[in-house]
Amino acid sequence: MQRVVTRHVIDHKPRATDFTVADVATPDCPENGILVQVAYVSVDPYSGIALRGRHFGFPVPEPMLESPPTSVVGQVIESRCAGFAAGDWAYGDAGWEEIAALPAGKFYKIDPDRAPLSAYVGVLGMPGVTAWASAKHLAKVTQGDVVLVNAAAGPVGGTFGQLARVYGAQKVVGVAGGSTKCELVCNTYGFDACIDYKSDNWTEQLSAALPDGLTVFHENVSAEMTMLALSLAQPYARGVLCGLVDAYHGEAQGKHPVNAGAIIAKRAQLSGLVVFDFMPRYQEFVDELVPLISSGQLNYVEDSVDGLENLPALFEKLVDGNNIGKTLVAVNPPTS
Amino acid sequence: MQRVVTRHVIDHKPRATDFTVADVATPDCPENGILVQVAYVSVDPYSGIALRGRHFGFPVPEPMLESPPTSVVGQVIESRCAGFAAGDWAYGDAGWEEIAALPAGKFYKIDPDRAPLSAYVGVLGMPGVTAWASAKHLAKVTQGDVVLVNAAAGPVGGTFGQLARVYGAQKVVGVAGGSTKCELVCNTYGFDACIDYKSDNWTEQLSAALPDGLTVFHENVSAEMTMLALSLAQPYARGVLCGLVDAYHGEAQGKHPVNAGAIIAKRAQLSGLVVFDFMPRYQEFVDELVPLISSGQLNYVEDSVDGLENLPALFEKLVDGNNIGKTLVAVNPPTS
Repeated sequence: MQRVVTRHVIDHKPRATDFTVADVATPDCPENGILVQVAYVSVDPYSGIALRGRHFGFPVPEPMLESPPTSVVGQVIESRCAGFAAGDWAYGDAGWEEIAALPAGKFYKIDPDRAPLSAYVGVLGMPGVTAWASAKHLAKVTQGDVVLVNAAAGPVGGTFGQLARVYGAQKVVGVAGGSTKCELVCNTYGFDACIDYKSDNWTEQLSAALPDGLTVFHENVSAEMTMLALSLAQPYARGVLCGLVDAYHGEAQGKHPVNAGAIIAKRAQLSGLVVFDFMPRYQEFVDELVPLISSGQLNYVEDSVDGLENLPALFEKLVDGNNIGKTLVAVNPPTS
Repeated sequence: MQRVVTRHVIDHKPRATDFTVADVATPDCPENGILVQVAYVSVDPYSGIALRGRHFGFPVPEPMLESPPTSVVGQVIESRCAGFAAGDWAYGDAGWEEIAALPAGKFYKIDPDRAPLSAYVGVLGMPGVTAWASAKHLAKVTQGDVVLVNAAAGPVGGTFGQLARVYGAQKVVGVAGGSTKCELVCNTYGFDACIDYKSDNWTEQLSAALPDGLTVFHENVSAEMTMLALSLAQPYARGVLCGLVDAYHGEAQGKHPVNAGAIIAKRAQLSGLVVFDFMPRYQEFVDELVPLISSGQLNYVEDSVDGLENLPALFEKLVDGNNIGKTLVAVNPPTS
């Protein structure tokens, strides 16, 4: 079977040429796990930091043999897990690969009749759970909140902003890079405004878009943006920190300084979010979000390619921030 | 009347010689305010940062005329506020002075029969409200928590730790400077352990005192200590930041960096606390703490001197960290 693997240890900003498609041995079905034929591979920013061995204990992928960790949607070929049978569909942890061995406790059954299968790696997958955990369980967005969302065109930010609206936010403002992304955020995700951080005077534009400040922010890019959000915060604003994407390809681990004095002065509440912790609530999450997708309250956009051979270029596009929406690769998707 | 005033603008670590006792005009009773004969003046770390004009908008005190802001307990001489009459006792915002004009909305009636009057500038005053707001309303200490308290010998830290025990903490560990303070923290406040940050290998001692990490921390000294607490935090630990005492006498405003990556990795919840916000709940606070003092569950220690002329030396002692317990000055206290 095929897997996209690293050609060498990667200590620079990853390029498509750092990867190749290799023929590797088909894995065995793990004890209490399942073996799936992959239909969709998720392509995620965190894979970039995982390449350097800095993602929650995942080791550096072995060159010419392993990919960084990701999530996939696949159809069960073999099951050693009660409740899963050949032909069932699952979403779980795997690599950039054609056939995946999903280990015990790291996969969930999904229903292809409730939503398009590809959605399960995006709005109904890890990015969606991140946004849901942040908006609902950590920031606890409620009636009247004024919300700032960074990386708003991405699947986490876009979903966060739309869920915030569902939970009663009176205003949702995004930050994204470039006019195409900002148009998507406003027109498709329905944010009230989106500021292009590549434009001149963008911080002034952001202040103008939030004349009364913010009560909630969701941040996954940098400590600098966290400080900017704090500067715009009303007292007792809640901020969720769930990533430092800007630093994923730096040469060293940074200090990512958030000023303790600003936290105190704003009486801010900052919460760190690690999405893994919320995966046990995956079914509750799906049950809440599927109706929102059906009703048109929750929209999403995919930036997809066909075939594992096109994954490296898509990953480079993501690393460079040139993707629009959720990046994913279709690998033998079912024909309906 | 007498007031302790600054001799000059203070841009260094304050010394006793920076202050003098001046004869100043007795203030008028403010509209909707009260005029009190002061019995006890609170001496607080925040007065140090207020001297530099860096405390929530308080201006730099005018040399030879003004003191930094503080709190006092006094007996009403004149009242222009409904509900207060001459002879009543009050706690409120004033200066280092003999007669104080307490402005509208900045004072509370107190009952000398419920607790010693001096307690109302300490465990039943602003330091106590800080500890209560932090433990009960922000950290929400509950059954089973493992608590770390910095500046544990002080009136805020000591009260925080004892309240944490009342709220069900299974373990309370303090950090303080010197063996005398640590003995106070363990023997009088009943903490399980107190680590002397002036001793060798103190961070190793602290780790050893918290072999399973902490679930709550209260921090009012520095970002460095916040980072140390985060390094010892269990996932989802709650930390309250309410001061940066180490930086109150520095030459410039610091960056006080707390690493955003550490917040994320620990799924920590950091909350900024400004005690002013909780003063409207003063009566609720007093009603909760008085019975705890009466029952012996909440102990406190005072470091007091008699007479305004001795205030400057006491303030220097506090700035140098050589005080033991709540620093206050008795000024014409009532004889019982």
